[in-house]
Amino acid sequence: MVNLAREQSEQFDLPRRLVAEGLGTALLVAAVVGSGVMGEQLAGGNMGIALMANTLATGMALTVLILIFGVISGAHFNPVVSLSFALQRQLPWKDFLSYSAVQIVGGIGGTMLAHIMFSLPLVSEATHIRTGVGIWVGEIVASFALLAAILGCLRTKPDAVPYAVGLIIMAGYWFTSSTSFANPAVTIARALSDTFSGIRPFDVPAFLVAEIIGAIFATIMFRWFWFIE
Amino acid sequence: MVNLAREQSEQFDLPRRLVAEGLGTALLVAAVVGSGVMGEQLAGGNMGIALMANTLATGMALTVLILIFGVISGAHFNPVVSLSFALQRQLPWKDFLSYSAVQIVGGIGGTMLAHIMFSLPLVSEATHIRTGVGIWVGEIVASFALLAAILGCLRTKPDAVPYAVGLIIMAGYWFTSSTSFANPAVTIARALSDTFSGIRPFDVPAFLVAEIIGAIFATIMFRWFWFIE
Amino acid sequence: MVNLAREQSEQFDLPRRLVAEGLGTALLVAAVVGSGVMGEQLAGGNMGIALMANTLATGMALTVLILIFGVISGAHFNPVVSLSFALQRQLPWKDFLSYSAVQIVGGIGGTMLAHIMFSLPLVSEATHIRTGVGIWVGEIVASFALLAAILGCLRTKPDAVPYAVGLIIMAGYWFTSSTSFANPAVTIARALSDTFSGIRPFDVPAFLVAEIIGAIFATIMFRWFWFIE
Amino acid sequence: MVNLAREQSEQFDLPRRLVAEGLGTALLVAAVVGSGVMGEQLAGGNMGIALMANTLATGMALTVLILIFGVISGAHFNPVVSLSFALQRQLPWKDFLSYSAVQIVGGIGGTMLAHIMFSLPLVSEATHIRTGVGIWVGEIVASFALLAAILGCLRTKPDAVPYAVGLIIMAGYWFTSSTSFANPAVTIARALSDTFSGIRPFDVPAFLVAEIIGAIFATIMFRWFWFIE
Repeated sequence: MVNLAREQSEQFDLPRRLVAEGLGTALLVAAVVGSGVMGEQLAGGNMGIALMANTLATGMALTVLILIFGVISGAHFNPVVSLSFALQRQLPWKDFLSYSAVQIVGGIGGTMLAHIMFSLPLVSEATHIRTGVGIWVGEIVASFALLAAILGCLRTKPDAVPYAVGLIIMAGYWFTSSTSFANPAVTIARALSDTFSGIRPFDVPAFLVAEIIGAIFATIMFRWFWFIE
Repeated sequence: MVNLAREQSEQFDLPRRLVAEGLGTALLVAAVVGSGVMGEQLAGGNMGIALMANTLATGMALTVLILIFGVISGAHFNPVVSLSFALQRQLPWKDFLSYSAVQIVGGIGGTMLAHIMFSLPLVSEATHIRTGVGIWVGEIVASFALLAAILGCLRTKPDAVPYAVGLIIMAGYWFTSSTSFANPAVTIARALSDTFSGIRPFDVPAFLVAEIIGAIFATIMFRWFWFIE
Repeated sequence: MVNLAREQSEQFDLPRRLVAEGLGTALLVAAVVGSGVMGEQLAGGNMGIALMANTLATGMALTVLILIFGVISGAHFNPVVSLSFALQRQLPWKDFLSYSAVQIVGGIGGTMLAHIMFSLPLVSEATHIRTGVGIWVGEIVASFALLAAILGCLRTKPDAVPYAVGLIIMAGYWFTSSTSFANPAVTIARALSDTFSGIRPFDVPAFLVAEIIGAIFATIMFRWFWFIE
Repeated sequence: MVNLAREQSEQFDLPRRLVAEGLGTALLVAAVVGSGVMGEQLAGGNMGIALMANTLATGMALTVLILIFGVISGAHFNPVVSLSFALQRQLPWKDFLSYSAVQIVGGIGGTMLAHIMFSLPLVSEATHIRTGVGIWVGEIVASFALLAAILGCLRTKPDAVPYAVGLIIMAGYWFTSSTSFANPAVTIARALSDTFSGIRPFDVPAFLVAEIIGAIFATIMFRWFWFIE
């Protein structure tokens, strides 16, 4: 999330940055899907306990992954984060495309990795229904809040970004009705997992639209806050 | 919470500061009310699990919101926090009035946003009874502890304020009998939500009085600690 | 916990330091006792959930209280912490006595405050039995670990002390068989609360001895680590 | 985890460093085993609650132990961490051997300490079966993620290492199918505890192999990221 993409292009070449984005997104999705499986297995039927396990593992892994990869690639792991930086001309559009591609590929790899770890079929079509106006609004809020955390912290307290992002996603698991996917690469990857954290493929497009809306709205608002034309 | 309101008046104009206060309070209340709904839905009847979800989402969101908006408006999100700064002449009284107004309006908007996300009526009259001497004392303690965290950290370790505030509210959810509302704008907003985190409108005035008492007491005490006349 | 007691004697006079120690210990005990009551009330009979609530509220409140009062009094809130600094000649022995006195008085006040908040008798004789060799060893380990966290961090990373102390107490709630009282003032105060976090008065003396042993052992060991004669 | 082993050899002599490694590993294992026992006792049969207690106590204790001992010995507490530094010539091979030896001895001591605290036989042969391709892959991922957290943070944000390590282990308890042992010394020590966190001795060798593979893979990858030949 550290917005050094432009400067880093001198320090870290594109292959390293893309490996960082792909590997980071894979581990993030493995954390989401894997902890969903483990949480459901151990929760004894109490979905609150399952989601709590899912929440903590996701947020904690995300924070660590940003700490690890932030300096290399910016640690976006998320096409709408890359989109926001591209819109702000802090990431070249061609890098946006390659970032998004490896994020999606990495995310799918993360689902497969989680399934291997838990002895499940490599991929499976998710059946968890997540649809409706309320949930779509939830996903707009989730994406807005994620981008607000990134853009709000980046300028004056960049060291707080890894923690702010982990915390806002953990909060969003509970306060948004969509459980805060807020990430198109992760959403696609979760459509391939018929487990606790899955999302029915039919429901994916609306999530992607909502995530893009929330991210663009946050980008516009924080440019206004910061007097950027 | 960052006490830069005076200095910021040069950097951020009043409209931006008021938008920050209103938006931040809205997201805070959405986190409180939304996670209460989700927590109760998933807890399988165990109110301990429901309150734990409510606690973590509230505290984590609050920390992130202060990280985001602290530098813009001070991130009060809370009339008694603004009151304390006004009493200390660090916020002009007319700004106190406009801050409080947008906090209350934003908070009500946050209830509506949570209700939209969870497909509930836009507002509803809360029926959760919260009254009695013990609970009023709890709310005084909660408000005192919140202001102590802010005033105690602000002078010597301002970077810790966002974390200290989130942590003291999370602790207060469990150790104060009132579950630590500690915020008149949030209290009013929660009166409009007949859900887990609601408060019966009849019980609101006593909460507001308790919150003001706790805040004033903390303000006096920390001025004494710091040798301020 | 910030080891500035000597230097602070110029900055903060003894009355302020004693009020800080007494008030801080009172709020700490209120957090321990209060969250124990609330946790047990809401846990639906699951003691794991009750102790988790008790754990998080205690550790979070403790961290915040150290952040608030560290610069004023050192934020000991604990006679064996004061004892360790006295043994190391970083706190005059007469201040050790007054610190310990206000910590004990403050702690008892904290029990009363929690009882008022939860509409219980002002004090009550605890009946929770906590005795046996295993538990005494647990309490030695708890006290050793607490002092190790303080002494280990203080020299090279003092800013981490509030977090380290909160974290080690939260861990100790679960990994020591005594649930990590590690504090004579808190132990005495908990003997006056016939609630979840209480301790039978008969069992208190052995806890105090164990706490002193652990603290002295840690003090000796860290002086050896740091080449101090 | 702080990679100052070479420089510290001037400041801290080998005996102090070895005591730090042994004591730190002992307390880490005591936290793992002890919180497993306590968690299972209080969870009322809900394994999700038991593992959550085990998770939080382990990660919190680990973070504090690294804060305490990082500056003395590097706070490895883990033969594969020491192996990675030895492979990178940041720890002499003979120190690697003595580090590993005290880590294993300390770990076993930690199991004994936990058993004493909870009034169990000093050691017992674990019966918890942990085997299969999925779990081995889980353990490779866990070890890779742990080393990635250490190596990724050490160069640019060393102050974050204690938190990153605690967080990635807590996440790994839930997202890896092996519950993230990621440490040969801890694995051996847990084979001697027939409790919640135990591992059947027969299953240990495969865990050790997986841990070594993950650590070496992370070491190679991060040297590539950082352009080190």
